[in-house]
Amino acid sequence: MAVHNVCFVKTIIILLDGVGDRPSKALQGLTPLQAARIPFINGLAAAGMTGLMDPFSPGIPVGSDTGHLAILGYDPLKYYTGRGPFEALGAGIMLRAGDVAFRCNLATVSGDTVVDRRAGRISSEEAAELIASLTEVREVDGVEVILRHTVEHRCVLVLRGDVSDRVSDADPHKEGARLLWPQPTSDDAASRRTAEILKKLMTRYREMLERHPINARRRELGKPQANMILPRGAGKMPSLPSLAERYGVRAAVIAGGALYKGVCSSAGMEVVEAEGATGTLNTNLDSKFSKACQALKNYDLVFLHIKGTDTAAHDKDPLKKATFLESIDAALARNYNPPSEELIICVTGDHTTSSITGEHRGDPVPVLINGYGVRRDASQRFNEVDAAVGAIGRIRGMDLMNILMDLANRTQKYGE
Amino acid sequence: MAVHNVCFVKTIIILLDGVGDRPSKALQGLTPLQAARIPFINGLAAAGMTGLMDPFSPGIPVGSDTGHLAILGYDPLKYYTGRGPFEALGAGIMLRAGDVAFRCNLATVSGDTVVDRRAGRISSEEAAELIASLTEVREVDGVEVILRHTVEHRCVLVLRGDVSDRVSDADPHKEGARLLWPQPTSDDAASRRTAEILKKLMTRYREMLERHPINARRRELGKPQANMILPRGAGKMPSLPSLAERYGVRAAVIAGGALYKGVCSSAGMEVVEAEGATGTLNTNLDSKFSKACQALKNYDLVFLHIKGTDTAAHDKDPLKKATFLESIDAALARNYNPPSEELIICVTGDHTTSSITGEHRGDPVPVLINGYGVRRDASQRFNEVDAAVGAIGRIRGMDLMNILMDLANRTQKYGE
Repeated sequence: MAVHNVCFVKTIIILLDGVGDRPSKALQGLTPLQAARIPFINGLAAAGMTGLMDPFSPGIPVGSDTGHLAILGYDPLKYYTGRGPFEALGAGIMLRAGDVAFRCNLATVSGDTVVDRRAGRISSEEAAELIASLTEVREVDGVEVILRHTVEHRCVLVLRGDVSDRVSDADPHKEGARLLWPQPTSDDAASRRTAEILKKLMTRYREMLERHPINARRRELGKPQANMILPRGAGKMPSLPSLAERYGVRAAVIAGGALYKGVCSSAGMEVVEAEGATGTLNTNLDSKFSKACQALKNYDLVFLHIKGTDTAAHDKDPLKKATFLESIDAALARNYNPPSEELIICVTGDHTTSSITGEHRGDPVPVLINGYGVRRDASQRFNEVDAAVGAIGRIRGMDLMNILMDLANRTQKYGE
Repeated sequence: MAVHNVCFVKTIIILLDGVGDRPSKALQGLTPLQAARIPFINGLAAAGMTGLMDPFSPGIPVGSDTGHLAILGYDPLKYYTGRGPFEALGAGIMLRAGDVAFRCNLATVSGDTVVDRRAGRISSEEAAELIASLTEVREVDGVEVILRHTVEHRCVLVLRGDVSDRVSDADPHKEGARLLWPQPTSDDAASRRTAEILKKLMTRYREMLERHPINARRRELGKPQANMILPRGAGKMPSLPSLAERYGVRAAVIAGGALYKGVCSSAGMEVVEAEGATGTLNTNLDSKFSKACQALKNYDLVFLHIKGTDTAAHDKDPLKKATFLESIDAALARNYNPPSEELIICVTGDHTTSSITGEHRGDPVPVLINGYGVRRDASQRFNEVDAAVGAIGRIRGMDLMNILMDLANRTQKYGE
């Protein structure tokens, strides 16, 4: 197709994880965004337009996985294939379309009975060492095997090859029950093969675990040994049509957390590393913002993810969240040096995280869009309340990427 | 069904084509609607309610065809059956449900090879004369044939009868390739018959074209002769449930452009002609507005379409768009004389056309609704920014007709 329009505009999205919040007494009835002194971001709001966004649907709290899928324009109802693949992405495994991933527990079994689903709440350190010892198993029956520890007794297992996610859980989900050897839940060769591979893996892992010095020591100390891996929640990594296919953009992601790199990478975005990006409150904001502005030279779309806002809210600390927002604003002001004024900048979040409950909640998040060709409304500040009267109105996460790519003159007309 | 409610209110929709826009430097960072002096329309906004409307979906630019379908309440995903039928409607062919329409090129072939898909970029004048000469073929195998020139090398072909749109393109879409004799793409009698009719038509047209004096002259001048019609993009005109069926209204359309008359006519609206309605910037606005007010005596719903706003934006001339908006406002003020005060008036657009890029874009359009029984909000002006704070909020094109017909007390209750 001929390209009729070459007035392309570059775009940067600054995603503040869990930025939406609720009023708290600690902030005199304000939200962290309302209480924070964020003159630079408020200036962007004043010169652009604001609104509210329901990441998925009003009143439905989303996870970081489903929230990011929606905001990147991928319907979670279609592309969220269970927690296995997204937990694997979060563990830093760069999944490929078709990989089948499982959440797993390190457990204690005696014979076929699950005595303790968490192996006596084994420490992260011991679990990491045990699981590292299992990673020498790289292949079973021609299928590639990837196993990675995450936290405490938890790990993820990925099978790469001609495999299926139609297999049952090994984890009986209660103690004292018999472990459930995985069975195919669909009558096809790949599902049968996958169940067989899981059984072989579980048996082999058990032999290796029972021989491991950590378990010898645990037995000596009278602790339950961690002698079984129980996979559950099989999910196949979906094939996401890339942002390049959808909008013709070259896109990059800058993030500390593995999940965000993983999801964006699945959407065809390139991972740009920023020094000191940790995915926590101690991240190097200057490094991230300056790297993002540099990346705009080489990419049409830069997605910058900042996690600390969510972390502070999970810690039920609205003041810490407000203070971190002030650090973000100051760092953005110091480092904001885009290569062109013809730019669209969007600041928003992936969900509300309540500093009162410490949990993700379904309140909408504020969104601001500023830049070349963007309408300027009367709203002056970026927070949950002022944004509500802006010219964006109330949108859905699934609409955001279409809106931004349309402002960048990248969308295709529907009809004539 | 018993009629419970006889408080019917008449409705007029003033549709300003491509009225939404983006801020431009030429207008000191305002949109044409923001910059224009439109006191009458602003007065309607102040006394009524405003909002923003996404014709199809946020960020998705629509064509005039898909935009009008949605705004009239017909889901384009269901009723937009490809460009053929809507291009035929735009060419002034009053399609009936079941007609199959094709977009065609006048092309140059040598033997079975397509030498030039555009017959050497033949002029509109020569193409019009050639195609007029082909219209003596009015029927093939009992099927009615309608052929009409549009612009340059382009024309539309309509088959009316027991025909199918399951036939392949004749146009190979590249030069030097063999022309593709149409084939049925579905195994039924109507599809096979349609493919045969197309082959017969193409052969007969070729004989007629090669004998035509224009082609004799082109051969003498060494120009490629226009000796073939290449149909493509078969589409069947859908059957739209009429507005009369849906809401019990007698409806009329006043428009200069053929597409708008055609789409509205398909929805069962009667075409009311207004003298001097050209579908361009030089249209007779006084004639259109006075005719619309008169039509309200005989019709329950009058749809008045004004094209010039879109034309000015396609010309990348925001100042001309603003000036034309001022002409519209003045003409409406001069001629606004509805037969009753018990009236609903709606002013809106079918899409945003950016005066910067000259293209349709996916930004929402403002909508105002004023009149009998309509809530009055605080918004005072009709433009992309002020309308965002109005009581309508942000709606979809598919919702507009239901909202208007409900204000007219014409909708049926869902449930008891």
